Amino acid sequence: MRKIIIGVMGPGEKATAKDLQNAYELGKLIAQQQWILLTGGRNVGVMDAASKGAKSTNGLVIGILPDDSQKGISLSVDIAIFTDMGNARNNINVLSSDLVIACGMGAGTASEIALALKANKQVILLSDDVESKVFFQKMSPNNIYVVDGVEKAIATAQTILK
Amino acid sequence: MRKIIIGVMGPGEKATAKDLQNAYELGKLIAQQQWILLTGGRNVGVMDAASKGAKSTNGLVIGILPDDSQKGISLSVDIAIFTDMGNARNNINVLSSDLVIACGMGAGTASEIALALKANKQVILLSDDVESKVFFQKMSPNNIYVVDGVEKAIATAQTILK
Amino acid sequence: MRKIIIGVMGPGEKATAKDLQNAYELGKLIAQQQWILLTGGRNVGVMDAASKGAKSTNGLVIGILPDDSQKGISLSVDIAIFTDMGNARNNINVLSSDLVIACGMGAGTASEIALALKANKQVILLSDDVESKVFFQKMSPNNIYVVDGVEKAIATAQTILK
Amino acid sequence: MRKIIIGVMGPGEKATAKDLQNAYELGKLIAQQQWILLTGGRNVGVMDAASKGAKSTNGLVIGILPDDSQKGISLSVDIAIFTDMGNARNNINVLSSDLVIACGMGAGTASEIALALKANKQVILLSDDVESKVFFQKMSPNNIYVVDGVEKAIATAQTILK
Repeated sequence: MRKIIIGVMGPGEKATAKDLQNAYELGKLIAQQQWILLTGGRNVGVMDAASKGAKSTNGLVIGILPDDSQKGISLSVDIAIFTDMGNARNNINVLSSDLVIACGMGAGTASEIALALKANKQVILLSDDVESKVFFQKMSPNNIYVVDGVEKAIATAQTILK
Repeated sequence: MRKIIIGVMGPGEKATAKDLQNAYELGKLIAQQQWILLTGGRNVGVMDAASKGAKSTNGLVIGILPDDSQKGISLSVDIAIFTDMGNARNNINVLSSDLVIACGMGAGTASEIALALKANKQVILLSDDVESKVFFQKMSPNNIYVVDGVEKAIATAQTILK
Repeated sequence: MRKIIIGVMGPGEKATAKDLQNAYELGKLIAQQQWILLTGGRNVGVMDAASKGAKSTNGLVIGILPDDSQKGISLSVDIAIFTDMGNARNNINVLSSDLVIACGMGAGTASEIALALKANKQVILLSDDVESKVFFQKMSPNNIYVVDGVEKAIATAQTILK
Repeated sequence: MRKIIIGVMGPGEKATAKDLQNAYELGKLIAQQQWILLTGGRNVGVMDAASKGAKSTNGLVIGILPDDSQKGISLSVDIAIFTDMGNARNNINVLSSDLVIACGMGAGTASEIALALKANKQVILLSDDVESKVFFQKMSPNNIYVVDGVEKAIATAQTILK
């Protein structure tokens, strides 16, 4: 039986303090649900914080890396997939996730949300960026779930996965 | 000397009549500038209309296709690049374009704009979708150019390329 | 601490009975070493047999799939990575493996061996195909290990990983 | 009407003097046939020499680059496609070529021949490497054409394309 994989996507270097806190909590709660966490694998921002959160409670973390280097990988990644395909790996991130939680906002995150919608995935949005919520909800009202906290994000994920 | 390549990105099946008209004119004007047109290569929507426009005035058209099939290719594509990598090819589209013109809006187009911004490309937005303009301009005010017609799009491209 | 990942690559539909038997044993022994098995993820040939072997002894199996479909996945895959990039995913297979064991021979397998050598990976060859051994050993004498059985393959892997 | 594209694949840094001479002649003859030349786009080895040959007689040259950098591109490339996907771009090289000519041998070249055979493409082999000819001919006798000079390579290409 395949395991459920939740992708947490968000800014790297430009993540806010709140994004990082949310990401850590998301990683922790995802692991507590016995779900696998999937991130972009780097040792910065939302990727790293979510991975740390999942490891804090013995979760399993998959990192889909943009390059082929042993440098710059989150120390909390258990399984590193080296794509060496830069941001084109964002498509693999979303295709491999049963659902996507976007935590924070930036160009890379926006590309992942858009690629997820293109692939007809469900996407949960957690950030203070009002314009992104308005934009993506209008684009795909049936696939976008706007939430205002990590617990709501996890509760929404549970409902979607039922 | 390498040739200048302008990427025109926009909806496929969901393009509006206005998107198609704009795309045809863009393709034509791009070819008249002696620029090469690059599109997603399929025989639908903005890709097809822009390619037809470029061919109407003997331009050169490159199509970066998502699959590896001889079916579904725009008849106006001169050079077909078969990626067989689905929407991950959107990253190749933007990386290979000297600048990107987004004509219309949809999930695939949004992914291309976001990937272009992530790669620090200049992006010209031409559509009636207000929310996308607000969202992307706030995200990257220095890389996004909102225009209200094809002539302005070409004039903006000329200014950027100078 | 990241886990060791061993890639087992080999023919799909064209695998021989001996390839399948070897692949099953390889998967089993890999899991018994507490290594993670990585394959191309499909439910045929060497990919499927190695995955079954690993699951027979509670190993963890990652499948790097060429498409984005829920069909055709080995039932023994625990973690499915959907690349939707066809045989270009072969490069991800080898980059993500600490070392590669080629079990049997075919065009896809040959591409994986060659891509592994290009990335300076160590590759263990297990097959009856004499010409492939001669060819690849001459190409990269320091990276190719020819073995004549699954136990020798695992012993060689242990030596390389030390 | 789409143009015929011939892919010339061969070693970069490790090309022999004979490989380079053959590649230059191949590029020249391909352009004289009004075919488009497709290469890996870098400014070394067979890629560069073939591109120079094609430009010497005003041919059109497409370079499918492994990275996203303006550095390291052959000055003879007219149209640069930036994949930023490393050697996974080898699959795009062969899928986008109507037929492949392998000029010389190495790990990257071997991966391209193998990926071409996997995609059921016709491949012309031109090199002094005996073992590669034996290996690939046995693997795909109906798709491999061994030739001993550039004129024969072009004559074979003409026959295949008829």
